[in-house]
Amino acid sequence: MKLATLKHPTKKDGELIVVSRDNQRAVRASSVAPNLREAIENWATTRPQLEQLFNELEASRRTDAFEVDEDELHSPLPRAFQWADGSAFLHHVKLVRMARKAEMPETLLKVPLMYQGGSDDFLPPRDGIPQIDFAHGTDFEGEVAVVTDFVPMGISPEAAIEKVLLVMIVNDVSLRGLIPEELAQGFGFFQSKPSSAFAPFAVTLDELGSAWFEGRVHLPLLVDYNGKPFGKANAGEMHFHFGQLIAHAARTRNLSAGTVIGSGTISNEDPSVGSSCLAEKRMIETIANGKPETPFMKVGDRIKIEMKDQYGRSLFGTIEQTVVQAPIPS
Amino acid sequence: MKLATLKHPTKKDGELIVVSRDNQRAVRASSVAPNLREAIENWATTRPQLEQLFNELEASRRTDAFEVDEDELHSPLPRAFQWADGSAFLHHVKLVRMARKAEMPETLLKVPLMYQGGSDDFLPPRDGIPQIDFAHGTDFEGEVAVVTDFVPMGISPEAAIEKVLLVMIVNDVSLRGLIPEELAQGFGFFQSKPSSAFAPFAVTLDELGSAWFEGRVHLPLLVDYNGKPFGKANAGEMHFHFGQLIAHAARTRNLSAGTVIGSGTISNEDPSVGSSCLAEKRMIETIANGKPETPFMKVGDRIKIEMKDQYGRSLFGTIEQTVVQAPIPS
Repeated sequence: MKLATLKHPTKKDGELIVVSRDNQRAVRASSVAPNLREAIENWATTRPQLEQLFNELEASRRTDAFEVDEDELHSPLPRAFQWADGSAFLHHVKLVRMARKAEMPETLLKVPLMYQGGSDDFLPPRDGIPQIDFAHGTDFEGEVAVVTDFVPMGISPEAAIEKVLLVMIVNDVSLRGLIPEELAQGFGFFQSKPSSAFAPFAVTLDELGSAWFEGRVHLPLLVDYNGKPFGKANAGEMHFHFGQLIAHAARTRNLSAGTVIGSGTISNEDPSVGSSCLAEKRMIETIANGKPETPFMKVGDRIKIEMKDQYGRSLFGTIEQTVVQAPIPS
Repeated sequence: MKLATLKHPTKKDGELIVVSRDNQRAVRASSVAPNLREAIENWATTRPQLEQLFNELEASRRTDAFEVDEDELHSPLPRAFQWADGSAFLHHVKLVRMARKAEMPETLLKVPLMYQGGSDDFLPPRDGIPQIDFAHGTDFEGEVAVVTDFVPMGISPEAAIEKVLLVMIVNDVSLRGLIPEELAQGFGFFQSKPSSAFAPFAVTLDELGSAWFEGRVHLPLLVDYNGKPFGKANAGEMHFHFGQLIAHAARTRNLSAGTVIGSGTISNEDPSVGSSCLAEKRMIETIANGKPETPFMKVGDRIKIEMKDQYGRSLFGTIEQTVVQAPIPS
């Protein structure tokens, strides 16, 4: 089943729709839940009803079906009560720490890295990335994310895998120039992690078929930058699986239904697959030539992120964002 | 005006009530907004209606008024889309960094410290503080917090003060034993900052009278621990005012209406006022005697946090929490 959210001028959570497997047609699901956030908060009740809508849509039995326009869609959850982003691809951790001359954490192989992200105001997947100051070093980060059910404090990693309700892909916008100072302060990321954008369609695990196993999505993330292929790293190379990330987040507290957990930037040891962020490419350039060549994002730079299943079908629709100049308030 | 939230078995945001200035009586505000979160998201419309209810309640003109039982109240916002906690009391920063042998950040006097906190599941102010492992070093932290209107990216500190809609006090539960390892990883607090609890009543700025100026609450926070006075540090000694904290949070992104911004643990240079957390007391003991004497919280330890106005009236009601053993899920 695929779910998505229509933008709405006043409803901040948008409006829930059910989308066909080919991403082409949809039906409104307002009879089931006003929005995806509330659908997830009542998943035991809403899931079978949403699946019925999906099955009817797939069988062309819905006369109220309409054509999907991805430009009209928001992130599946335009806002969430929690966004916790891991960093489970160790090759990414190694490269970005090398880039900022930071030490590797001693617990790298055993304890997931995770930060609490801002979740009050996600960007729509086709809207601009607003930036005020380009000295901040605007970068994209292509990731996989999952939406969880309620998770009790102290859950095991194995039990936590069963709490995954939906899968999404995300552009976790990062401001590289602000990270060293923020991390030196010791309180983690804040200004360096502005609003993220999620691809239009959130999907249930069965849509991933055999690509979902051992708590990971075993498919490449296709990243194009300014119209050219930039990366196709496989998301299956996660060192920690999503059950481990969820259990890490829930070690000292419950997680509400609708919590979003991110994988961290997808990154592979194999250099031929490219990267899912600019910082990695810049580090590889620095290792090769002594200095980075690829600049960070400026006004007009375009990022496209997508993931296809084993048959070449787009699973989540596409993130297609252009960097724009944000106004400075008077 | 004072606002509060009745706990509800299924409504996760609870139910909005308007409370009399003496904290004794209340009326339901469901005709205005179902809950405080939605009231704040439509503040221009809801504020005058809520004020009318408050004025009628104060004039004893509401036949539907009922007696307030603080045990039936949740945190004013049982959950929020954003909780960003500063650390604006430099004396606290100095003591806790000394305690964990960490360096002072170079930017201490000029750039606020702030972390993104979990906001999906705040604790009610009279419910237990559930803990699994007491090796984690459970501590309380008494703070002031504000609820903001929508804040545009790049706002100035002066303009940001005008975005404060409500003031609250909070117990920001901290797990001291987990902080060094988390900060060594470089991603900031996560497991070391489990769910916080806010005192029952959120108040508008006029309730603070002359105690609110220069973006700070100039009143002592009264902290009792296990029935004995523990601290009465004045919240006016904030190095950064709330406008500066809000502007810091909004430097690279918009903040949604309903964002909660915390002051950090209230702490004064004057040692005679005591402390608002155990970590400070333990550090003062270590300086005096070479080692800490006060243990961290165990099952049954009780924390009470309150703030009174210049006439001795309780402004926010009381946080009264007891540490309890949380079950480990099978």
